[in-house]
Amino acid sequence: MDWHLQLNSESGVPLYRQLYDQISELVRSGDLAPGDRLPATRELAGLLGLNRATISTAYELLEAEGLITGQVGRGSFVAGPAENREQGVDWEALLAPAGSPAGVAGAGISFVMSRPSRDLFPLDAFRSSCRAVLDRQDLADILQLGSPSGYEPLRRLLLEDARRSGLARPGDDVIVTNGCQQALDLIGRVLLRSGDRVAVEDPVYPGLKNLLTGMGARLLAIPVGSEGMDMEAAERVLREKPRFLVVTSNFQNPTGATLPLEARRALLDAARQAGVPVVENDAYGDLRYCGAAVAPLKQLDDRGGTILLRSFSKVSFPGLRVGWVLGPQPLIERLRHAKEAADLHTDQLSQAVLLEFMESGRLEEHRQRVLVAGRRRLEATLEGCRQYLPSGARYTRPEGGMNVWVRLPEPLDTAALLPRARMEGVAYVPGLYFTVARPEPGALRLSFASLTPDEIRRGLEILGRVVAAEMKRADFQPESALV
Amino acid sequence: MDWHLQLNSESGVPLYRQLYDQISELVRSGDLAPGDRLPATRELAGLLGLNRATISTAYELLEAEGLITGQVGRGSFVAGPAENREQGVDWEALLAPAGSPAGVAGAGISFVMSRPSRDLFPLDAFRSSCRAVLDRQDLADILQLGSPSGYEPLRRLLLEDARRSGLARPGDDVIVTNGCQQALDLIGRVLLRSGDRVAVEDPVYPGLKNLLTGMGARLLAIPVGSEGMDMEAAERVLREKPRFLVVTSNFQNPTGATLPLEARRALLDAARQAGVPVVENDAYGDLRYCGAAVAPLKQLDDRGGTILLRSFSKVSFPGLRVGWVLGPQPLIERLRHAKEAADLHTDQLSQAVLLEFMESGRLEEHRQRVLVAGRRRLEATLEGCRQYLPSGARYTRPEGGMNVWVRLPEPLDTAALLPRARMEGVAYVPGLYFTVARPEPGALRLSFASLTPDEIRRGLEILGRVVAAEMKRADFQPESALV
Repeated sequence: MDWHLQLNSESGVPLYRQLYDQISELVRSGDLAPGDRLPATRELAGLLGLNRATISTAYELLEAEGLITGQVGRGSFVAGPAENREQGVDWEALLAPAGSPAGVAGAGISFVMSRPSRDLFPLDAFRSSCRAVLDRQDLADILQLGSPSGYEPLRRLLLEDARRSGLARPGDDVIVTNGCQQALDLIGRVLLRSGDRVAVEDPVYPGLKNLLTGMGARLLAIPVGSEGMDMEAAERVLREKPRFLVVTSNFQNPTGATLPLEARRALLDAARQAGVPVVENDAYGDLRYCGAAVAPLKQLDDRGGTILLRSFSKVSFPGLRVGWVLGPQPLIERLRHAKEAADLHTDQLSQAVLLEFMESGRLEEHRQRVLVAGRRRLEATLEGCRQYLPSGARYTRPEGGMNVWVRLPEPLDTAALLPRARMEGVAYVPGLYFTVARPEPGALRLSFASLTPDEIRRGLEILGRVVAAEMKRADFQPESALV
Repeated sequence: MDWHLQLNSESGVPLYRQLYDQISELVRSGDLAPGDRLPATRELAGLLGLNRATISTAYELLEAEGLITGQVGRGSFVAGPAENREQGVDWEALLAPAGSPAGVAGAGISFVMSRPSRDLFPLDAFRSSCRAVLDRQDLADILQLGSPSGYEPLRRLLLEDARRSGLARPGDDVIVTNGCQQALDLIGRVLLRSGDRVAVEDPVYPGLKNLLTGMGARLLAIPVGSEGMDMEAAERVLREKPRFLVVTSNFQNPTGATLPLEARRALLDAARQAGVPVVENDAYGDLRYCGAAVAPLKQLDDRGGTILLRSFSKVSFPGLRVGWVLGPQPLIERLRHAKEAADLHTDQLSQAVLLEFMESGRLEEHRQRVLVAGRRRLEATLEGCRQYLPSGARYTRPEGGMNVWVRLPEPLDTAALLPRARMEGVAYVPGLYFTVARPEPGALRLSFASLTPDEIRRGLEILGRVVAAEMKRADFQPESALV
C-alpha cells in the first residue's frame, strides 16, 4: 500500500479527522478509484500504529459522506460501481465525488432529524383541508400549469398578512418556493457569482453550507453563541462586504440560539453601512414555546435591505414543500425568473391545501398543540442534559424550535463517540457536520422535536452513560501515531 | 437624446431587432437606469426615420423580456422601481437585468401555451385518487420529510416499469424531480461548469435555452427540421465534445418533430464515439396520436450513455410538479445530492396522488381520452394551416405532442406581425423566442393542445387574414433607416 498517509499526532487535528481528510483527498483526486477496496480497519490500524476505533471513525465519516461503502463481510470500497467503465460515457470521470452530508440515523432513540413529530400530525384536519380543495370550483385551475410566483390566492394572502403585521414595506412582494431550502437556492442563483463571499453563522446546518459552497461561494464565518451571532465578528465580517449575509434569527439550527433585539438592530446597522443584504431565514419562528417574541429583522429594517424566508414545513407537514420569500420587488422579480428556470413553479395541490389549512384556522389550532408538546419536549431535553451530562458539559437553552446544542468537556470528540453511542441505542449529529471555520470537536446537536419526553429522557440517560465511560477511557488511553 | 443608436438597414438583421438589441444593451450596461422614460414610439420613429410599427415591435419585445414596462397614458419606462435607491442595499446594482422570456398571452384565441387543456382534466378521477391517498395507512409518512430520491413507492414503481419495458439497464436508477424542467436543472448543476459547451436543438424551447445559458453554458446548435435533428450537424457538433447533448426525441418543442429510428441509432453512435452523454428529454412521448412509436434512445443505447427524462405533467396535471430521471446509478446518486441542496425533495402529496392515479389505471384511461382529443386538435391545426396560410408557408406535420412549427414566406417577420395578430384576436409565439443560432424570422409556434378544434380553425382563419394583409403591405412598403 503506497497511499502516503501523513498523520501527525501533534497537529491538534484529531487523528481520525486527518485520516478522513487524506482518504477523501485520495478519492477526489482519483488515486483511489470506484470499487477499490480499503484495508480492513484492523489491518490499517496495525500499519499506522493507531487504535482500531480511530480507523472505524474515519471510515464511518467517509461512508456518511458517500465516499465509501461498507459491505458486510467484504470490507469497505470506494463508492461508485466500477462496472460502468465501458467504452462511451465515463460517468466516473464526469462526476466529481459527492461531498454532501448523509443522514446519521438508525439508532433506537434518534436525536438526528430536525423535523416535527409525525405522531402530532393532525391527520383529520389535513383530510378536511384536502377535501375542501377537491370541492373547489377552481380545482381545474389548481391542476393547470401555474405561475412561478406561486398559487395566486396563497401568494396574495401571504403578502396581505405580511402587510397587516408590518413585515412588508411598500414595494415588497412575495414569491412561493419549495420550502426555505429552495428560497436559499434561488437567492444564491440570483445574487452569487462563483468566488463571491457569503457571511454565515458558525456552526450552521449543512443544508446551507453545502448549498453555498456548491455554488462556489467562500463562506465568512460568524461565530454563534447562546445569544446568537457574535456581533463584533459580524461587524468585522460585514466590513469585508460579502455578497450577502444569512442569519437564522430565531432558534438557529443547530444551536437553538435567538438573536436578541439589540443585536438585531446592530446587525441591521452594520449591514446597511456595508450595503450588504441580510437574508433572514426564519423557518422556526412560529415555534416559540416560552419567552417573548423578538421582532423580525425584516420588520426592524426600515431601509429594505432584508429578505425574509418562511415556511409551512416546520410547523405543519414537511412532506409538503411550501415556503415563501418576502422582499423588495426587484429581487422577487429576479427570483421569479430563477424559479421558472429551476422548476417552473411550486406544486399547486399542496399550495391550495395549505392555504385552506391556514384560512380555516386549522393551522393555528395545530400550532397551539405543537407549542404545548414542543415545550414539554424542550423541557425534557434541558432537564435530561442537566441530569445526565457530565458537569463540564455546556448546552444552549432555547425558547423554541427543535434543537439544543451541547458542548462536551475536552478532550471528548463527538464524532469519535458516535459509533459507541449508536451501539448503545442513541444517535445525534456531531458538531463536525455544522462547522464552517471553527471546529468544535466536543459539540453535538440534539434535535428533540420528533421524540416524546420519555424517549428524550431515556436517550439522554444513555448518552450520559456513554460520555461518562468515554471520559474514563480518555483519561487513561492517549493515542499515539506513526508519522 | 444621445443614445448613439446605430441602425443598419443593410445588415440583414431586422431593424426592430437591432433596436431591441441596442436598447437591451443600454439597460444592461446601466446607461439607461430603472425608471428612465423611453421616447414615445412616434417620437423615436421620427428621430430615426423608421416606421412607428418597428419601434412598437422593439418595445413590445423589451417589455416581454421584462426590461421595460409600459404604463397606459404615461409611456414606457426602464423596469425596476427607482425609489429603491436609498442608502443601504442597492438592489438594482446587485441584480443584473432579467433576460428571461415572458409570456405572450392575453389574446382571444391563444396558441401560446404548450400545455394540456384544462377542460379535459378528469376531475372526478383526480378526486378519487386524492381520497384514496387520504385513506391510506401511511398518510403520516407521506406528510413527513421525505427522501431526495422521491416517494419510495412511486420511485420503485417507476424503476420496475422501466425494467419491465426494457428501458432500464442493469445498474440504472430513478430519481423523482419537480417535472422535466428540474431534471434538466439538476443535470446542469451536476455536469456543467461555467463556460462548458452543451449541444441543443435549434430551435428549442426557451425554458431549456435560458436554463443552460443562465448556468454559463455555451450552446452548440444542431438544426432541427421536420425529421428531427440534422444528423450531419449533430455529428459535427459531437466531435467538439460538448459536456452533454439534449435531445427531445418525440414531438420536439417547438417543432413537433420526432427523431426517426435510424437517426437515433446514428446519434447514439456519434455520442458514444465522442464520449458525450445524451439527455433524452421525453416529456411528450406518451402523447402519440397516430403513426408507430419509435424506441426511446435510452432503450436503444446498450452502453449506458443516455439519461431519460419523463414527466406526468404533459399527460395529466401540469399543476402537480412530478417527473423523473432514469440513468446510471452514479449519476442518479449525484442528482440526489443536487436535489437535496435545491429543495430537499419533491412534494410528497402529489407524488402519492399521482402514484395512485397511475396504479388505479385512471392515468391510462385519461391518456386514451387525451389521445382522441389530441388527434382531433392536431388534425384541425394541420387542416387550418393548409386552408388559411399562404401557399408559400411551410409547417411540420407531427404525429403527437402539442406543437406545430410554421414558417411563413419571406420577408414576413412573425415578431413584427404579432401585435397586429393580437389586435385581431389571435396569439402565437414568434420563432425568435426559440432561436439558438439560426434565426428564422418567419417562423412561429402553434401550441394546439389547449384549444378546441373549432377555436383552432377560427384562430388560423384570423392568422391567415393577418398574414395575407401583411404580405400585401410588405410588398409595397420597404423600410429605410437613418444610420
